Amino acid sequence: MDAQSAIGIASIVTAGITMAIGSIAPAIGEGNAVSQALRSIAQQPDEANTISRTLFVGLAMIESTAIYCFVVTMILLFANPFWSWVISP
Amino acid sequence: MDAQSAIGIASIVTAGITMAIGSIAPAIGEGNAVSQALRSIAQQPDEANTISRTLFVGLAMIESTAIYCFVVTMILLFANPFWSWVISP
Amino acid sequence: MDAQSAIGIASIVTAGITMAIGSIAPAIGEGNAVSQALRSIAQQPDEANTISRTLFVGLAMIESTAIYCFVVTMILLFANPFWSWVISP
Amino acid sequence: MDAQSAIGIASIVTAGITMAIGSIAPAIGEGNAVSQALRSIAQQPDEANTISRTLFVGLAMIESTAIYCFVVTMILLFANPFWSWVISP
Amino acid sequence: MDAQSAIGIASIVTAGITMAIGSIAPAIGEGNAVSQALRSIAQQPDEANTISRTLFVGLAMIESTAIYCFVVTMILLFANPFWSWVISP
Amino acid sequence: MDAQSAIGIASIVTAGITMAIGSIAPAIGEGNAVSQALRSIAQQPDEANTISRTLFVGLAMIESTAIYCFVVTMILLFANPFWSWVISP
Amino acid sequence: MDAQSAIGIASIVTAGITMAIGSIAPAIGEGNAVSQALRSIAQQPDEANTISRTLFVGLAMIESTAIYCFVVTMILLFANPFWSWVISP
Amino acid sequence: MDAQSAIGIASIVTAGITMAIGSIAPAIGEGNAVSQALRSIAQQPDEANTISRTLFVGLAMIESTAIYCFVVTMILLFANPFWSWVISP
Amino acid sequence: MDAQSAIGIASIVTAGITMAIGSIAPAIGEGNAVSQALRSIAQQPDEANTISRTLFVGLAMIESTAIYCFVVTMILLFANPFWSWVISP
Amino acid sequence: MDAQSAIGIASIVTAGITMAIGSIAPAIGEGNAVSQALRSIAQQPDEANTISRTLFVGLAMIESTAIYCFVVTMILLFANPFWSWVISP
Amino acid sequence: MDAQSAIGIASIVTAGITMAIGSIAPAIGEGNAVSQALRSIAQQPDEANTISRTLFVGLAMIESTAIYCFVVTMILLFANPFWSWVISP
Amino acid sequence: MDAQSAIGIASIVTAGITMAIGSIAPAIGEGNAVSQALRSIAQQPDEANTISRTLFVGLAMIESTAIYCFVVTMILLFANPFWSWVISP
Amino acid sequence: MDAQSAIGIASIVTAGITMAIGSIAPAIGEGNAVSQALRSIAQQPDEANTISRTLFVGLAMIESTAIYCFVVTMILLFANPFWSWVISP
Amino acid sequence: MDAQSAIGIASIVTAGITMAIGSIAPAIGEGNAVSQALRSIAQQPDEANTISRTLFVGLAMIESTAIYCFVVTMILLFANPFWSWVISP
Repeated sequence: MDAQSAIGIASIVTAGITMAIGSIAPAIGEGNAVSQALRSIAQQPDEANTISRTLFVGLAMIESTAIYCFVVTMILLFANPFWSWVISP
Repeated sequence: MDAQSAIGIASIVTAGITMAIGSIAPAIGEGNAVSQALRSIAQQPDEANTISRTLFVGLAMIESTAIYCFVVTMILLFANPFWSWVISP
Repeated sequence: MDAQSAIGIASIVTAGITMAIGSIAPAIGEGNAVSQALRSIAQQPDEANTISRTLFVGLAMIESTAIYCFVVTMILLFANPFWSWVISP
Repeated sequence: MDAQSAIGIASIVTAGITMAIGSIAPAIGEGNAVSQALRSIAQQPDEANTISRTLFVGLAMIESTAIYCFVVTMILLFANPFWSWVISP
Repeated sequence: MDAQSAIGIASIVTAGITMAIGSIAPAIGEGNAVSQALRSIAQQPDEANTISRTLFVGLAMIESTAIYCFVVTMILLFANPFWSWVISP
Repeated sequence: MDAQSAIGIASIVTAGITMAIGSIAPAIGEGNAVSQALRSIAQQPDEANTISRTLFVGLAMIESTAIYCFVVTMILLFANPFWSWVISP
Repeated sequence: MDAQSAIGIASIVTAGITMAIGSIAPAIGEGNAVSQALRSIAQQPDEANTISRTLFVGLAMIESTAIYCFVVTMILLFANPFWSWVISP
Repeated sequence: MDAQSAIGIASIVTAGITMAIGSIAPAIGEGNAVSQALRSIAQQPDEANTISRTLFVGLAMIESTAIYCFVVTMILLFANPFWSWVISP
Repeated sequence: MDAQSAIGIASIVTAGITMAIGSIAPAIGEGNAVSQALRSIAQQPDEANTISRTLFVGLAMIESTAIYCFVVTMILLFANPFWSWVISP
Repeated sequence: MDAQSAIGIASIVTAGITMAIGSIAPAIGEGNAVSQALRSIAQQPDEANTISRTLFVGLAMIESTAIYCFVVTMILLFANPFWSWVISP
Repeated sequence: MDAQSAIGIASIVTAGITMAIGSIAPAIGEGNAVSQALRSIAQQPDEANTISRTLFVGLAMIESTAIYCFVVTMILLFANPFWSWVISP
Repeated sequence: MDAQSAIGIASIVTAGITMAIGSIAPAIGEGNAVSQALRSIAQQPDEANTISRTLFVGLAMIESTAIYCFVVTMILLFANPFWSWVISP
Repeated sequence: MDAQSAIGIASIVTAGITMAIGSIAPAIGEGNAVSQALRSIAQQPDEANTISRTLFVGLAMIESTAIYCFVVTMILLFANPFWSWVISP
Repeated sequence: MDAQSAIGIASIVTAGITMAIGSIAPAIGEGNAVSQALRSIAQQPDEANTISRTLFVGLAMIESTAIYCFVVTMILLFANPFWSWVISP
């Protein structure tokens, strides 16, 4: 197997695995947060605004780890420095 | 095995695994969120609107990680930069 | 092993695994959601309509991740771009 | 190993594994749903009809993921496009 | 190893594994359902009939996934299309 | 390794593994069911008959998945169609 | 490695593993059942007879899966049809 | 590696693993049963005799699965039919 | 495989895996923290400010471990000392 | 590798693993039993004698599985029939 | 593969894995601590100062294990004694 | 690799693994026992003596499994019969 | 691969893994301890001093296992007796 | 690979793994014990002395398993009998 294929395959596999594993925890964490937000609203309807605001800030923090993974995946697919080097003549 | 086959196989396997693993956590997270929403509605029927709205925003956030995986899968299958390079003459 | 066999085998195995893994989480998530819906109906029979409606929207969201996997499986079996390329003369 | 054997073996193994793994989650999810339905009937006998109806709709949704797996298994055993191609002269 | 042996071994192993894994979840799911049915009967003896009927319908649904696996196992052992092809002269 | 040995070994190993894995879930499921039956009898001694009858029907359903595995094991050991074919002259 | 050794090793290893794995679930299931029986007796001493009888029937059912495994182990060690065939001249 | 060594090694390793795995579940199951017995005695001291008797019958049943494993281990070490065959001249 | 390819592949794979694994725990930890914050606000609305402030400090601490991983990933992709050495003439 | 080394290595590794795995469950089971005994004494100090006696009988039963493993380990190290055979001239 | 490449690859992979695994537990532990701190503040607002101070000391202790891992990662990447030795002429 | 090295390596690795795995369960079991003892003392200070005595007997029983592992480790390192045989001229 | 590289690689990998695994349990254990300390302070503010002192002693004990791992890691990196021997002329 | 390198590598890897795995359970067990001690002090401040004394005895017992592992690690690194033998001329 030549060097291009090897680096290409590694990039493909790593990109997919990174995105796949990186989506597990944020989805579960957000599920917990949303789930608790709904319970809190049902329990204290008067604080729905404060709860929503805190929820959205929290979701943004949690989502950020998924976005880190997405960024790494995109770098590996479209801005991969090793691939650039290996296909440069 | 020639380079095209190798990259093709890697793309096929990675595409499938990414979508498969990427569907685990969102489904479970959404299950928790929906489940809690139903409990909250049963507990506080008067807030059904607020609960539904918060639920849908939350589901969209959670679904987003599944969609990241779906996007990566589609890129690997139909817009794969490494495959384009390797089959270009 | 020639290229056609290799890509064919990869497609078969990936298609099956994708569908198999992709059916785990939605089934469990839907099980939780349905289970909670039943508990909520028993607890608040007057809200059965609102609960049913929210449940069905939620089930559709959860089922969507199973459908993503089914779509990827069908693409791999019947509209596989790599297979098309490799059996084209 | 010739190409026919290889593709045949891959189909056999994948068909079995797909059905086996694909039966795990639906059985557990349905178990939870049925279990909760029984608890709800015991708690609110007057709503047995509503509960049964919601249960059956939910079971159908959950069973659908098992059926996706069964369909993929049957396609792999009896309508396998790769096998058709490889045994065609 | 010749083609017949290879396909035969794959069929044997897959048949066993499919049945073995396919019996895990239904047994656990049915255990939960039966267990809850007994608790419900003890709690609401007057509804024993409704509970029994719902239980049997639920058990049939759960058992169905075990039966899918049994069917696939029997097909692999006694009506295996790949084996038929490979031992046909 | 000749064909007979290979198929024989596969049959031995698969038979054992099938029975071993196939005994896990029924034993646990029956344990839960029996355990709950005892709790129900202690809680509602007057319904001991109904509880026992439902328990035995449930145990039979759960035991059925263990019996499927036992049947497959016996077929693999004593009525194995692949072994019959391979030792026939 | 000649055929006798190979089949002998497979029989030894499978026999041990079958018995070992096959003893996990029955022991745990019986532990739960006995544990619950003791709790029930402490809670409802007047029903000790009914509880004991139900417990022993349940233990027999659970033990049956361990006995299936023991039977398969003994068959593999002392009545192994493949070993008989391979050492017959 | 000659046949004697191979069968000897397989027997040694299997004997150890069988005993090791076979001791996991009985110890945990007995731990649960004893633990519950102590709780029941503390709760209902007047029934200490009935509880002890039921406990000892239960422990005997649970211990039986450990003894099956011990028997198989001893057979593999000291009455191994395959070893007898292979070292017989 | 030459040295450049080997180091390149190792960097790609490690970068992806580091980011993927490194996103699991922070997302779950933040999910717990946010979830508890919402519960606390619903329970003690008057302390919403103190709770928010403590939450944000905590989220920053938790996020820091994700950022360590992101930093290592970026170093591996764009400032890798081993890659610099190996491609230097 | 000659036969003596192979059998020696297998004995060493198996002895260690058997003892290591065999110490897991008894320690945990005894931990549960002791822990519950302490709780029972605190709850019903007057029954401390009955509780202690039942505890020691139970600990002896649980310890027995660890002792089975220790016995097998010692047999493998110091009374190994396969080692005796292989080093006998 | 020459010695430099081998040591370089080992350093890259180990650095990434160390940081990735090393970020799991601190994030979860801090999540628990922060989560409990929020609950305590909601429960006892008057002690917010004591709780915050104890929380920050605790977070520092927990963070220290992540920092140990980060230090080891940095040593492996930028102050690796084995790499220094191997690239020294 | 000569026989001495092979047996030496096996002894080293097994000694370490045995001690490492063998320390898991006792530590956790003792943690539970100590933890429960503290709870019992807080709940029933007058029985501190009985509780301490029972705790120490229990800890000794649990520690015994760790000591079995330590003994096996020491035998493997310093009184290894296989090593003695292999280095004897 | 020459001896220096092999020992160097083993040291690098082991150092990283030791630190990584060794940071898991202390972080979680400290998280539990801190978390409980906060709960206790909120519940019994008057004992904050005793609680803090006990907490810090406990944290030091728990941290000690992380420090053992750190010490071993540092020894492997900077005071490795095997490396010293192998690079000594 | 010569004998010295092989034994050296085995010692390095085993030393690290032993310490790493051996630190998991003590840290968690001590975490539980400390955590419970804090809860007990908050609940029964008058018994703080008895609780502390029992806690420290318990921590010493739990720490002992970590120390066994540390001792084995140090023996493997600095007093390894197999290494002494292999480097002795």
